[in-house]
Amino acid sequence: MSQPNNEYSEKHYFASYDHIGIHEEMLKDEVRTTTYRQAIYNSKHLFKGKVVLDVGCGTGILSMFAARSGAALVIGVDMSSIIETAKKLAEDNDLGDKIVFLRGKMEEVKLPVDKVDIIISEWMGYFLLYESMLDTVICARDMYLKPDGLIFPDHATLKIAGIEDGAYKAEKIDFWDDVYGFDFSRIKQTALREPIVDIVEAGAIVTTASSILEIDLYTVTVKDLEFRSDFNLIATRTDYLHALVGWFDIKFTKCHKPLYFSTGPHARYTHWKQTVFYLHDILSINAGEKITGEITCKPNDKNHRDLEFTVSYEFSPADAGRAMRATHEYLLC
Amino acid sequence: MSQPNNEYSEKHYFASYDHIGIHEEMLKDEVRTTTYRQAIYNSKHLFKGKVVLDVGCGTGILSMFAARSGAALVIGVDMSSIIETAKKLAEDNDLGDKIVFLRGKMEEVKLPVDKVDIIISEWMGYFLLYESMLDTVICARDMYLKPDGLIFPDHATLKIAGIEDGAYKAEKIDFWDDVYGFDFSRIKQTALREPIVDIVEAGAIVTTASSILEIDLYTVTVKDLEFRSDFNLIATRTDYLHALVGWFDIKFTKCHKPLYFSTGPHARYTHWKQTVFYLHDILSINAGEKITGEITCKPNDKNHRDLEFTVSYEFSPADAGRAMRATHEYLLC
Repeated sequence: MSQPNNEYSEKHYFASYDHIGIHEEMLKDEVRTTTYRQAIYNSKHLFKGKVVLDVGCGTGILSMFAARSGAALVIGVDMSSIIETAKKLAEDNDLGDKIVFLRGKMEEVKLPVDKVDIIISEWMGYFLLYESMLDTVICARDMYLKPDGLIFPDHATLKIAGIEDGAYKAEKIDFWDDVYGFDFSRIKQTALREPIVDIVEAGAIVTTASSILEIDLYTVTVKDLEFRSDFNLIATRTDYLHALVGWFDIKFTKCHKPLYFSTGPHARYTHWKQTVFYLHDILSINAGEKITGEITCKPNDKNHRDLEFTVSYEFSPADAGRAMRATHEYLLC
Repeated sequence: MSQPNNEYSEKHYFASYDHIGIHEEMLKDEVRTTTYRQAIYNSKHLFKGKVVLDVGCGTGILSMFAARSGAALVIGVDMSSIIETAKKLAEDNDLGDKIVFLRGKMEEVKLPVDKVDIIISEWMGYFLLYESMLDTVICARDMYLKPDGLIFPDHATLKIAGIEDGAYKAEKIDFWDDVYGFDFSRIKQTALREPIVDIVEAGAIVTTASSILEIDLYTVTVKDLEFRSDFNLIATRTDYLHALVGWFDIKFTKCHKPLYFSTGPHARYTHWKQTVFYLHDILSINAGEKITGEITCKPNDKNHRDLEFTVSYEFSPADAGRAMRATHEYLLC
């Protein structure tokens, strides 16, 4: 706007504009960004003189961490126009000669090297896999990582647990029963199918956690991301169970000292928050009782960025209570 | 997903899906929804036996208010797929025979009547005009409203004031000066151009308010929405001024007793919050001093949903302080 005669800067300004907010949120996620920084800065012995590939580099912060950590060359790849800003930021920080930024798809961009020593990437989405770039990281690994190459981070775990969530369920789900004097309950059926990304307090957890997916970045394949997993949840207290909550943990195992962060309810806030799957019924659980079930996850056929889930559970109270079983479907979109 | 063989419900499910969250936020905005409800329920003498047009009806809540208020016929028009849900909700509430829902553009849909007695619409966007449907309401008025017809609401005022906002400005703007040890200050220039929609505390206001636009729904034209206005702000206390905050007030003047709600910092929370325009400099103001200026607003040429602003101000401290003047440009997108 301020340079109406400069077509490039004009385009650039408008293109980059929308995206600043997203990158601001990610950069301000201190758990995320400081863990990556620590993992890279504590691994100077691994990065020194190496060629590093940053998959989905965004503003280039991870590329800059790698350059500061002694990498001989860092290659940042991103499809978004933000990469034009990343290029300038690297120059502003005297790293313009150490980092090469390439705009385009990982499959299509022409890298200045045949192979790289290390791949760094912050690819995780809500519930780990929603709109995640993991498939792109897998592609980069298969195309460019040396046989003995490293990946930062290199391990992810997806977990679920049961929560007492009566107050919030009433606000999100039961709300539709009476909307200013009208019956909106049919919207309730849609709302129940929509996992909610929000903050869950640690105190809401009423069962043990169950790991439903383990990802080794060195060996995972794209088809592993369409998965089916059993789960066993043991009630840790006598309470009501309204929903399942999902989160993920991330590990950097190749640092001098392995680093880890969790996006779970018990951990410090991250912009990924947690993901809540409401059950249609309310389970009355007693400490020690078991909820068993199965969860399946696959990309939605209509929009591969969206995730479809099927959750089946079975609950047989130890006391005279009614045994319950149900299967619910969800769409994270 | 639960009815893979039912193509319609399938499509409908996915189409309506994305939109529930938006409608939930609007319905849960109690200031918004209860004021509309009160305006319509308190005007049964005006709605009884009348034909009502609901512009941008969404879930149809306003149409249902009008039907319950005695309207003979309510016509709800919306382009979004949510109107399929609205139709079913009206039936669920035994109002299916009183409300006709038409999906499409106001300019193109074929109404079952030549003229209507009353137009109801919740058309307001952030800072009143951002992504607002006011142009559609004007179109509906000119095409369908009887000469003596009514519009609910029928008056809007856009206002600005100065605020002390040091802490938040540091978080949103100065943050870019040092991002984990790197200079990201060039992003600061983009951030400064972006008005921020967020909650401003009443205590942050340090000047009088200035009205920059008055809209009479009976006479306003589309070109009135591209405007230029002078403003005068008198410092109400000795403090720093970091930004201008904008908000709007809405009136229903044709009710038995006129109704009003404000989206200002001094009023109860609404989903419109307030809109903050950061100045590049910090003004040191003393109670009684005046800031004069001019604000222009027009739709962005590239995307007519976005708004371009130019804010010029002049500040001459009564004391020996340095006189300041500047012109800043903003894009709300």
